[in-house]
Amino acid sequence: MPITRQICADLDSQDALAPARALFDLPEGLIYLDGNSLGALPNAVSRRVAAVVREQWGRDLIRSWNAHNWISLPERVGARIAGIVGAEPGSVVAADSTSVNLFKLAAAALRLQAPRRVVLTEQGDFPTDVYILQGLTEFMGAGVELRVVERDRLAEALTDDVALLLLSHVHYKTAAAHPMALLCARARAVGALTLWDLSHSAGVLDVRLERDGADFAVGCGYKYINGGPGAPAFLYVAPRLQEVFRSPLSGWMGHARPFGFEGDYQPAPGVLRGLCGTPPVLSLAALDEALGVFEGLSMSDLERKARALGDLFIALVEQCCPDMALASPRQADARGGHVSLAHAEGYPVMQALIAAGVIGDFRAPETLRFGFSPLYVRYVDVWDAVARLAAILRRERWREPRFHIPAVVT
Amino acid sequence: MPITRQICADLDSQDALAPARALFDLPEGLIYLDGNSLGALPNAVSRRVAAVVREQWGRDLIRSWNAHNWISLPERVGARIAGIVGAEPGSVVAADSTSVNLFKLAAAALRLQAPRRVVLTEQGDFPTDVYILQGLTEFMGAGVELRVVERDRLAEALTDDVALLLLSHVHYKTAAAHPMALLCARARAVGALTLWDLSHSAGVLDVRLERDGADFAVGCGYKYINGGPGAPAFLYVAPRLQEVFRSPLSGWMGHARPFGFEGDYQPAPGVLRGLCGTPPVLSLAALDEALGVFEGLSMSDLERKARALGDLFIALVEQCCPDMALASPRQADARGGHVSLAHAEGYPVMQALIAAGVIGDFRAPETLRFGFSPLYVRYVDVWDAVARLAAILRRERWREPRFHIPAVVT
Repeated sequence: MPITRQICADLDSQDALAPARALFDLPEGLIYLDGNSLGALPNAVSRRVAAVVREQWGRDLIRSWNAHNWISLPERVGARIAGIVGAEPGSVVAADSTSVNLFKLAAAALRLQAPRRVVLTEQGDFPTDVYILQGLTEFMGAGVELRVVERDRLAEALTDDVALLLLSHVHYKTAAAHPMALLCARARAVGALTLWDLSHSAGVLDVRLERDGADFAVGCGYKYINGGPGAPAFLYVAPRLQEVFRSPLSGWMGHARPFGFEGDYQPAPGVLRGLCGTPPVLSLAALDEALGVFEGLSMSDLERKARALGDLFIALVEQCCPDMALASPRQADARGGHVSLAHAEGYPVMQALIAAGVIGDFRAPETLRFGFSPLYVRYVDVWDAVARLAAILRRERWREPRFHIPAVVT
Repeated sequence: MPITRQICADLDSQDALAPARALFDLPEGLIYLDGNSLGALPNAVSRRVAAVVREQWGRDLIRSWNAHNWISLPERVGARIAGIVGAEPGSVVAADSTSVNLFKLAAAALRLQAPRRVVLTEQGDFPTDVYILQGLTEFMGAGVELRVVERDRLAEALTDDVALLLLSHVHYKTAAAHPMALLCARARAVGALTLWDLSHSAGVLDVRLERDGADFAVGCGYKYINGGPGAPAFLYVAPRLQEVFRSPLSGWMGHARPFGFEGDYQPAPGVLRGLCGTPPVLSLAALDEALGVFEGLSMSDLERKARALGDLFIALVEQCCPDMALASPRQADARGGHVSLAHAEGYPVMQALIAAGVIGDFRAPETLRFGFSPLYVRYVDVWDAVARLAAILRRERWREPRFHIPAVVT
């Protein structure tokens, strides 16, 4: 029996998370399936940012560091993020970008693990992870050896000379999720530390850093967390490592007494030593406000809905779009919050779909990605999106020349 | 003959820069002399940020990377900053924090200068510069030797084993300005590179990086540039070094093809390789808009007015506040845009002054700092500020217990 739009509408009417959609400012009529790249705008953020600009910066000026507690924003935002990634209180701070935080923690892990010097990571995951390791390797010279292996060879490559296992929890392209607890246990068994990039899982999966035994983690504020374009990232350090890790980026905000203006660097207690320079307050306040959306919601409910939307999408694509190949795990619990398809003409197909009011994205050479934020994507949105995709494929709409003009960012 | 308020009002009426004040959203009745710490809010920024939040992020969502050209913001903002620090086109990008940029460029300079490994810097300047060098030293192990010397010993310490001379152009506490051209020439003569921290000079002095022969520079977006709290910082690389410098923070935004998602890092051409992760777009757009204030203005006019305000302040303090000691160079061309005073009870005196509607700041143990942004500070503001300071000192208002409660950030 085919899945009808009515079945999807019924799923929405039974969905306990459905009210969350009203917390977002979504363009009328648009189906937005790219929250895995840039999360939608929570209503409250517009007001918060306007207040921070006009009342805090404009009116209270420098006094806002105290009066509006700008100074503790990295810590307070970190505490909110800790709540959605299963981290111990006081073990997360918001700071810098994911790339910069990867550098800090990979370098810190290598210091702790000397004389071990091997960093093991996966071939073909989001490139910045490997780029940062390459920069670190080149910079430290004999200090690092980078081993980049295929995903299915990771387990055997986890030998007792590995200092650090760095992995994306969810693959940016395929959405394949690594079993965090299992890999942490295997790493621990050979004496390796783990560093998880949660960019594609934080805010959508029921991440459990503490329970699963992660040592370090970083993640992105602007995807499923909806913190706004280029929102500050975050970093996590397990409590047992907080007093021993040292970030090479020892800036004044990570000092034990930033306003002591002392001559020598002394790291702040705990995870705060992971801070470096002055945080971008406007962007950080937006991220703080966006995290308010998660209050009172359970990450396991969000994970369940995201995967149910993904399952529905896969079933509908198979029902209506025979030309499309699935490029993500079929099994829901092996996926993150997005689903990827493959099509030889993926780029113009995605452009045609965007022109039809369904936003996903394209990753060369042939991947179409669709993100299912459980906070604002409805079951009927999935139905409508696949209906439009099917029509484009059936009528070969993507052959129109206008859909072949490349964008800078796709 | 004493300086009267009327004389100050006459100076304002003759001031060609006076109209710039109307471009700022300043609280009624407040005299804001802390633009050296957090610049005031330009009117246009409120509108720009609201548009970026609601129309770009909220409505156009992921498409804004192309449609609103978010992707080139670091480069475009960098070009505007280049225009106010005397840098060649294409030699500046906006990115990260001053601290992170210091790390990138100090590390890059040391790579270029191997086997030289000495970094020379000044004792007692803004601590993050030394903290970052300490982190770099500790991290690189035998790779770096840090020499921190008193200001008046810098010239003799510039020996032919020095790899890098790192200095704040203007001292954060005393406002003393280094002669950039002279020190660059001396450094070049011994084969050392120079890295200038322009945090307290960019946007207020007529900085001439190209003319003066600077090799590298970093600076802050939220002081005299008025980019907003924690605004992104910038970095400068002289053209002759752009194709050879390598940042250890080799993130995807500094890749030659960020959206190629390639397996190996390949640095972007020119200064763009100084980028690392995704930039905080809200904060970066605010900075971009704030830079619009400088259009059509001459940095030499701004420098002249800032120093004239400082001269006026010093003369009035000497006329009215005999208890205050000058803690900045008396000679205008040896100063940046702020003037510091010393008083044994500096903290409660500053608190009393703030309560009287004049905002400066305090740096332990006894420094009161007053910043004179030539864009929005009037000559009469200086007169009024000193009149209130004199009254507080004369009546010993600062003895009131409420002025002795310490703030987190002062």
